[in-house]
Amino acid sequence: MPEPGVTPSGGSGSDLHLELPATGSRRAALAGALREAVREGRLAPGTRLPPYRALAVDLGVARNTVADAYAELVAEGWFTARQGSGTRVAERAAPAGAVRTPVRVTGHRTAPVHDLSQGQPDAASFPRAAWSAAARRALAAAPNEAFGPGDPQGRPELRGALAEYLARVRGVRTAPERIVVCSGFAHALRLLFGGQVLRGPLAVEPYGLPFHRSLLSDAGVRTVPLGTDDRGTRTQELAALTAAPRAVLLTPAHQFPTGGPLHPGRRAAAVDWARANGALVLEDDYDGEFRYDREPVGAVQGLDPEHVVYLGSVSKSLSPAVRLGWMVLPEHLVAPVLAVKGEREAWVSVLDQLTLAELIDSGRYDRHVRRMRQRYRDRRARLVATLAEQAPHIAVTGIAAGLHAVLRLPPGTEASTVKGATWQGIALDGLAGFRHPDAVVPPADGLVVGYATPPDSAYGAALDALCRILPPAPES
Amino acid sequence: MPEPGVTPSGGSGSDLHLELPATGSRRAALAGALREAVREGRLAPGTRLPPYRALAVDLGVARNTVADAYAELVAEGWFTARQGSGTRVAERAAPAGAVRTPVRVTGHRTAPVHDLSQGQPDAASFPRAAWSAAARRALAAAPNEAFGPGDPQGRPELRGALAEYLARVRGVRTAPERIVVCSGFAHALRLLFGGQVLRGPLAVEPYGLPFHRSLLSDAGVRTVPLGTDDRGTRTQELAALTAAPRAVLLTPAHQFPTGGPLHPGRRAAAVDWARANGALVLEDDYDGEFRYDREPVGAVQGLDPEHVVYLGSVSKSLSPAVRLGWMVLPEHLVAPVLAVKGEREAWVSVLDQLTLAELIDSGRYDRHVRRMRQRYRDRRARLVATLAEQAPHIAVTGIAAGLHAVLRLPPGTEASTVKGATWQGIALDGLAGFRHPDAVVPPADGLVVGYATPPDSAYGAALDALCRILPPAPES
Repeated sequence: MPEPGVTPSGGSGSDLHLELPATGSRRAALAGALREAVREGRLAPGTRLPPYRALAVDLGVARNTVADAYAELVAEGWFTARQGSGTRVAERAAPAGAVRTPVRVTGHRTAPVHDLSQGQPDAASFPRAAWSAAARRALAAAPNEAFGPGDPQGRPELRGALAEYLARVRGVRTAPERIVVCSGFAHALRLLFGGQVLRGPLAVEPYGLPFHRSLLSDAGVRTVPLGTDDRGTRTQELAALTAAPRAVLLTPAHQFPTGGPLHPGRRAAAVDWARANGALVLEDDYDGEFRYDREPVGAVQGLDPEHVVYLGSVSKSLSPAVRLGWMVLPEHLVAPVLAVKGEREAWVSVLDQLTLAELIDSGRYDRHVRRMRQRYRDRRARLVATLAEQAPHIAVTGIAAGLHAVLRLPPGTEASTVKGATWQGIALDGLAGFRHPDAVVPPADGLVVGYATPPDSAYGAALDALCRILPPAPES
Repeated sequence: MPEPGVTPSGGSGSDLHLELPATGSRRAALAGALREAVREGRLAPGTRLPPYRALAVDLGVARNTVADAYAELVAEGWFTARQGSGTRVAERAAPAGAVRTPVRVTGHRTAPVHDLSQGQPDAASFPRAAWSAAARRALAAAPNEAFGPGDPQGRPELRGALAEYLARVRGVRTAPERIVVCSGFAHALRLLFGGQVLRGPLAVEPYGLPFHRSLLSDAGVRTVPLGTDDRGTRTQELAALTAAPRAVLLTPAHQFPTGGPLHPGRRAAAVDWARANGALVLEDDYDGEFRYDREPVGAVQGLDPEHVVYLGSVSKSLSPAVRLGWMVLPEHLVAPVLAVKGEREAWVSVLDQLTLAELIDSGRYDRHVRRMRQRYRDRRARLVATLAEQAPHIAVTGIAAGLHAVLRLPPGTEASTVKGATWQGIALDGLAGFRHPDAVVPPADGLVVGYATPPDSAYGAALDALCRILPPAPES
């Protein structure tokens, strides 16, 4: 019961649904719908509008579309924008007699959007029933102490299941005592470098995720890019780097995002260098389970468990909504990593840990991965076939594994093609954003196209839209 | 399939069960059991022993007991200990013909231990069936996008449920847009201060959790303790503090750990100060749902939602194994906190978020809290009755709410009493560790006794053991 004098308000308020017509300018349609909502009093004066991103996701429009529509209504006096307080419905915009009720603005995804951005598995394929069943079994079987303070290293059930699974599927040689559970790859990087278990400089591949680079630079770690050629990242350069890195971060199974596997000689060179210099290989095995043309390439970790830190997560295999990852550590790093985690660091849901352990032990995780592999293989085949038919001059590369492909573009066409894609409501990335600013690599124009995200029903239209924005074949 | 040449090993190996007799010296019994395991080859040469903490938890003995037993076997040559590599079975300890298989050392909890440490709810009472059922329903009902990248602010289902719940139960005035989901109170502190959304100095209560103080000092925040009297923390001192704090951190419903509620005048003084100085009250409502003698005291937040940050979690109401908490923010802080979280910060399991939302919406969360309140009330009554009978000279205070009590001790007896407790295998804390080093408060000897943790079957014995280590009544 609230204290006397305190009026409970709150509650989620009523939703405001904005319906956008399926065709025509998104910005104009959104601005019109918002204006009407204010006029009708469904958007009360003072109401805070949702952030661009949130409304853009709800409506399936680009973020800039929302920003532009808001800006338009601010300019017209319907909305006010104040630094740090977001965009609100202006007080003077109140229709006579309007009741000021809290309104939550959401929207329907009516606009056709083509999400070909990389990095996400198919959200519609999350194994809901298998996960629920595993959760039920795991919760019933767990000892009482599982609901107590918890071990920052992670539940023994999960570490046991992972040690067995990673050995079987990825050739990782480890034991539960060497595994530390974390919430994903970024968390692992934070623990290793933010906690100063490892220090820079860190050698990296010439292409990689900008988010990881910024995370490392926030932790004060200098990254030094290696070169690349048709055998993958030139790990033989490690010994000669004047920066004298103490570790190298690699994506050996499927270079991110360019897509090639690291040549066996290059794998050996990285491990040899680490051994000879008391250094480490950090192996980011982000999608090693999804290989299509032959058996998966085993983890580099298997070559030398004492000189490789193996990093994985369920973000690609299940969903980034399950915040679960793992570090397989050389023995001497277990205690330092746990010291950084601290006795009370326990970000990762114990319930999810128990559930994943049960999912793996029951064989249902393998089954899900197999099912998804087939599904992504079909997606990939459709991408390749569509391009072969509609844009045969565009090479599709990096498709032996993973959830994305790289479309090679004629020199000098990437920027304008990406702009064209944005214009047509296609979410995808150019290669340029992934290139390390210091990388000395030949220029390469390309598009990174994720093929896991669109719903099945929308995939064909997404591919057609993609083909329309590709540069035309050079005249012969 | 692993690569050719990579032999998968790993796996969790076989468990080694150590059986300790229920009586006698724990250390001697453990050392004997370990020696025998090496002799019999169940502990192979080179095997790494589990960390002290892990084995201590498994066996239900004190951490020092394990450390002492290990040290003994190291001294005898059975084990070797090397910096950074832990304790291992010595190579020369190998019995003839022993097969070197990986062994995982675990143990049975056979020793009687009395866990009266504060801060944990009853792990045996986690509502497993209700949680499983809610997870199943929530997973079935969730939209596909729930399994996508996710909103760092938290799932709308959970923020909606929390806004309604906190208004109804705690008198919190808010809306889903003002709530940011996090993994618990410590995560909230890290976001607010580590991310420099707020800056120090921070006024605090003279007693509090040392972990929070060290977290703040790690973030470079100076904490300035207020005084205390029979009306609670002396918030009227805020305006006169020369340190000119920008915020004050309070536990108004149930001062941690001394246990009193903050007097209404003191609540008003804190809010008035915040209003007059553009400052903030941080309200740590860590166990506000567990009040026994009358209706819960509403949250201070209800007095002025724009000057109070309300912080809560399920760590006491459900389990710290569910990493879920929330911040209810003044409007101007939402955007800065989200900026610190970042687009990709998503520590908190979406599955747990959806499940908790469903648990709250279905009324089962309320039901669980009611059931636990009754259970803890009974525990508390038993504590009070036992002390009244066996140690009537000891005052039991701070018991109007929460999961712990403070036993007031005669001056000068706290340190020796705590030592006696440790000696007898009773886990509990003295008041001294909670006192801010700069606090100017009258000396107070006391024990902080958590009554939620022991299993029902062990609670009576724990209370008896507690009474035996209390200082005797002064002779009259």
